[in-house]
Amino acid sequence: MAGDPHRPVVPREFEEYDDDALKGEEAFKKTKVLAWHKQITLRSLVTSFVLSVVFNFIVCKLNLTTGIIPSLNVAAGLLGFAVLKTYTALLSQFGLLKQPFTRQENTVIQTCVVASSGIAFSGGTASYMLGMSPYIAAQGGAAQNTPINTKNLQLGWMFAFLFAVSFVGLFSIVPLRKMMILKYKLTYPSGTATALLINSFHTPKGAKLARKQVSLLFKSFCGSFVFAFFQWFFATADGCGFSSFPTFGLQAYKQKFYFDFSSTYVGVGMICPYIINVSLLIGSIISWGIMWPLIEKKKGIWYSADLPASSLHGLQGYRVFVAIAMILGDGIYHCVFMLTQTGCSLIAQLTKKKVSYSPQGENSDADNEASSDDKIRKDYFLKDQIPLWVAGTGYVVLAIVSIVSVSHIFPQLKWYHILVAYLIAPILAFCNAYGCGLTDWSLASNYGKIAILIFSGWVGLDNGGIIAGLASCGVMMSIVSTASDLMQDFKTGYLTLASPRSMFFSQVIGTAMGCAITPLVFWFFYKAYTIGDPEGTYPAPFGQVYRGISLLGVEGFSALPTNCLKLAIIFFFISIVINIIHDLLARYETKYRLHRFIPNAMSMAIPFYLGGYFAIDMCLGSLILYLWERKNKQKAKDFSPALASGLICGESLWGIPAAILALAGLRAPICMKFFSASMNDKVETFLGGAR
Amino acid sequence: MAGDPHRPVVPREFEEYDDDALKGEEAFKKTKVLAWHKQITLRSLVTSFVLSVVFNFIVCKLNLTTGIIPSLNVAAGLLGFAVLKTYTALLSQFGLLKQPFTRQENTVIQTCVVASSGIAFSGGTASYMLGMSPYIAAQGGAAQNTPINTKNLQLGWMFAFLFAVSFVGLFSIVPLRKMMILKYKLTYPSGTATALLINSFHTPKGAKLARKQVSLLFKSFCGSFVFAFFQWFFATADGCGFSSFPTFGLQAYKQKFYFDFSSTYVGVGMICPYIINVSLLIGSIISWGIMWPLIEKKKGIWYSADLPASSLHGLQGYRVFVAIAMILGDGIYHCVFMLTQTGCSLIAQLTKKKVSYSPQGENSDADNEASSDDKIRKDYFLKDQIPLWVAGTGYVVLAIVSIVSVSHIFPQLKWYHILVAYLIAPILAFCNAYGCGLTDWSLASNYGKIAILIFSGWVGLDNGGIIAGLASCGVMMSIVSTASDLMQDFKTGYLTLASPRSMFFSQVIGTAMGCAITPLVFWFFYKAYTIGDPEGTYPAPFGQVYRGISLLGVEGFSALPTNCLKLAIIFFFISIVINIIHDLLARYETKYRLHRFIPNAMSMAIPFYLGGYFAIDMCLGSLILYLWERKNKQKAKDFSPALASGLICGESLWGIPAAILALAGLRAPICMKFFSASMNDKVETFLGGAR
Repeated sequence: MAGDPHRPVVPREFEEYDDDALKGEEAFKKTKVLAWHKQITLRSLVTSFVLSVVFNFIVCKLNLTTGIIPSLNVAAGLLGFAVLKTYTALLSQFGLLKQPFTRQENTVIQTCVVASSGIAFSGGTASYMLGMSPYIAAQGGAAQNTPINTKNLQLGWMFAFLFAVSFVGLFSIVPLRKMMILKYKLTYPSGTATALLINSFHTPKGAKLARKQVSLLFKSFCGSFVFAFFQWFFATADGCGFSSFPTFGLQAYKQKFYFDFSSTYVGVGMICPYIINVSLLIGSIISWGIMWPLIEKKKGIWYSADLPASSLHGLQGYRVFVAIAMILGDGIYHCVFMLTQTGCSLIAQLTKKKVSYSPQGENSDADNEASSDDKIRKDYFLKDQIPLWVAGTGYVVLAIVSIVSVSHIFPQLKWYHILVAYLIAPILAFCNAYGCGLTDWSLASNYGKIAILIFSGWVGLDNGGIIAGLASCGVMMSIVSTASDLMQDFKTGYLTLASPRSMFFSQVIGTAMGCAITPLVFWFFYKAYTIGDPEGTYPAPFGQVYRGISLLGVEGFSALPTNCLKLAIIFFFISIVINIIHDLLARYETKYRLHRFIPNAMSMAIPFYLGGYFAIDMCLGSLILYLWERKNKQKAKDFSPALASGLICGESLWGIPAAILALAGLRAPICMKFFSASMNDKVETFLGGAR
Repeated sequence: MAGDPHRPVVPREFEEYDDDALKGEEAFKKTKVLAWHKQITLRSLVTSFVLSVVFNFIVCKLNLTTGIIPSLNVAAGLLGFAVLKTYTALLSQFGLLKQPFTRQENTVIQTCVVASSGIAFSGGTASYMLGMSPYIAAQGGAAQNTPINTKNLQLGWMFAFLFAVSFVGLFSIVPLRKMMILKYKLTYPSGTATALLINSFHTPKGAKLARKQVSLLFKSFCGSFVFAFFQWFFATADGCGFSSFPTFGLQAYKQKFYFDFSSTYVGVGMICPYIINVSLLIGSIISWGIMWPLIEKKKGIWYSADLPASSLHGLQGYRVFVAIAMILGDGIYHCVFMLTQTGCSLIAQLTKKKVSYSPQGENSDADNEASSDDKIRKDYFLKDQIPLWVAGTGYVVLAIVSIVSVSHIFPQLKWYHILVAYLIAPILAFCNAYGCGLTDWSLASNYGKIAILIFSGWVGLDNGGIIAGLASCGVMMSIVSTASDLMQDFKTGYLTLASPRSMFFSQVIGTAMGCAITPLVFWFFYKAYTIGDPEGTYPAPFGQVYRGISLLGVEGFSALPTNCLKLAIIFFFISIVINIIHDLLARYETKYRLHRFIPNAMSMAIPFYLGGYFAIDMCLGSLILYLWERKNKQKAKDFSPALASGLICGESLWGIPAAILALAGLRAPICMKFFSASMNDKVETFLGGAR
């Protein structure tokens, strides 16, 4: 979850809807399913484009602040439904409606928006691309801050790179769709949930609930937007305003423990599972509450006392590399685990004739009725084929294009490096799509991190290994993540009777939109603010983290300050041990389900770098959800995703006018500032003279 | 309402309860009514004492901040019920309960608490007594700031004065109770509402609602208390913290338009009628938004430019005297109106045999059933008599004691002045009790203001007319207000079958408690903070206003700055005209009931002195109530008084620890401050050097 939009949490509201919603195909008996090319309508593409822009802004803002991106599927679903429903309702009022709004159309929008906002993450504008910039490089040592190991961010090559690498993944996995969806009957919890959401919207009862949800989403959106607008007035400079409110006192504020009044992260906290938020809090207490203050006492002993605060050779180095160690530990564990599991499950598939792989799946409890539904779905799923030769040719042609253009953009990365990447990638893409089908967890960014280590080490520091590593991360992540995305969408399409072809094309269109929008949106923020300053509003933690990983790849551990390696190794293993304990408990201790209380290693690592402020926001979100659930469980389930989405969208969207104001050089009129009592006396005395 | 706790608004929740609640006597058939001396139990007195202290703090804090005091009857009723119900429920759990909790006992508590917190207002610690202090005097001109026209506040004489004057009123009106309650059947809306509240608490259905209300009150109490506590941390000095939050920008803040995060006044706003809050806002816009900025431009022309900001000869003078003019205009109009109405209605009583004087009363709609209830109530009401000779002797003896002691405390006031006051007082007390029975509006403070004008003029400036005027105000106000209070309580007792004797004694006990507690609580604030500084946290506006009235009494209009007289006269008549329009519309325009939209002159006057910040708080309260009512009218009616009471009590009670901290010299650790962007740059530069 944390730092990874490709592990969307199953929207809580649908966990118990199955019974109702799966009887769905009966409810849709009378509705005709249109041909695949009629499912992709102009109005759905326009809606997708508008929502893509919106979600790109949201994801970009989240990327640049903490890198934690919650599942925005529900928000996308609700908004897509709201926009097109309003439009078609208006048209039919005036008797102008020619084609009714179908659930297939809704699926197309959903797919398109998710694909394009997926690029906002896997495009790496806030992670591997940002890590190439000289500004981030300057925070490390002089050894790696050389021209060959940095690359100025420019719109031109960012577009080219994204277009070159983003489409390959789509072709890598297409031929396997029948095996995964029909034969293995993989669950794809997010895809299933999205399908159920869309199906429910298009039944009368569901539509009523959806309207109420949309209304709440709109209200919380407006509230969040207005509050963000209000906050703006009081933040004329850094260190001013609500975002630097020392809620728990000035001492805690210095250790980054405060509530920063960000309704976005309160909303994110409501969507993320409790344990994620608690893990974040635990991580921030361990790091900023205990470790960093202790290490800071060693200033001048462990590290030089006159380094700038952002230098990787100082305290910041401990923060970054310990965080990287935990993230890598977690990632490697998951990769190994997933590969093993995929292998085992495939072997089981081959040896036995038929094994059901859907532990919480939709088939187990509704076998009798489902069979007829399954038949209908299978028919539609098999109707529109995508020939194997199209997929094969597509992959090869696109890979060649990609090899040529990427090696042109990054001369540090030679053609054979990229070729190797494209040879391994389909295997990883399959593993990831399969694992994601089982667990809903996409490991794209982990495969990307491993690619950094491999390729940066292979190329070496003097030949621009850092840039090579970061670029190969982009190549790898794109393939792996789009592959699993596509398979999720096929599952959604399967359950909503949308054609695989329309899914494929809407994914292609969405990807194209993402490649065009993502760099533009990033550029907007990049020009308006300082991105990547650990003390600023947009610390973009993953820029530093990804560059740090690549640094490890080329320099080994020599780059680290004293004792940092020891700490990093300890936390690397802690991370793995936590995961092992979690999985063992989940497997062998089913009575109390203690594994629910094991924190998440990846989530613990993020505040190591950033501090606890957003963890506090998110825990507040959890608290609100908890109280709400205690008061009225069903209502909380039905409406908390809408409330949370509104909170996230509202504040994030204020980012647009705020960035425009910043670009125009307009400053907020007021500064809300916080002084200690003694400092206040000094300021008062000073003001007495100045006034 | 505004500035006058003796016009309690009928708690909204009871406006429509009548039908239900009045069938009450049937519900209580099986409950035995105890003898009058058993209604006053030790536990009820202890509870009363505790609540008296609580409510004294609340009223004192309200007095010292804006002087606007809402009806706390519901809060007192709820809390009294909650405390004793918890206590008796606990006892009965252990089988130790000997005497069940009766509604008569509840009435005793209610009476006692209302009596003692009434003293907190009519005791004038924040109005006429504060007006005597040299600190307030120093804000006026030199002419009146002489030793004979000031009196240092001291606990000793404050106790003595309150005890001397507060009991006389009780005896002045006792003989008339049968006439007013039984013969004229006056309504006493507040008394009736309180009785209905208590009756409803003691029926099973009502008890359930009451428990829910108490629970909400408790929650909002805690929330408000914690929020006030939180706010404290950020207010290390004046001009710091939430109470100086420039919500609408720095320019608006300078004109005192901002939301000061006072949950107390949000709660007050929820209890006060909409029109009161809107009137406050209109008043603040007219004065601070338009008039004062215009007058400020005449600085140096209309008034000297080098006066201190708080001087009555500068801008502050316009504020105070225009406010006084409106308050006096309103007060005089009401006195005249009430005297006329009382006269007419008495004449009507004497000429016709029986006329019902209860326009919205309880008898009109329930005549049939009520007759049996009435009989029961009448029996109990007549059971315990208070002989006429007791009342007469009491009045004379107490008046003599009062004359001797008051003329001793204030040598400026001669014995014949006080004698005259005690000769007029019973007539005014009767008028006030009668008018209050009709309209629920007690004019005590208006009679007090007129007394200031008369006696300060009579004594003259050189003989200490200001002190004499203010002291006579105390004498007059005490009698008039306790008289109408007592009659309200008789009505409550009549409806709850509580004996008039127990009512009388609990009123006496409550008054005694009030006389003891009020000066102590005031003293607490007086020592901890600067009281009466127009720019401070406790401006106590009525201290200045009452002294201003007395100044007019002795000096005439010569004390006013240029053009202030003209303005004052204009607003005096505006105030009267507003009242005339309101009453004419109320009488002759019944179709649209336009009179509901005529603002209240008294309410408009208060922000003339204070500014609009608390009006904004109160309008926010109105807004919350309005939205709540739109969403669920019944729920809003049932629970808004409880929510509001909790908000008021919580923040007000934080006043106690806050004052203790201030007395102990402990400062808050943080200052939250607001700068303009340019000022922030200066401060940043300064801090760059200072750090």
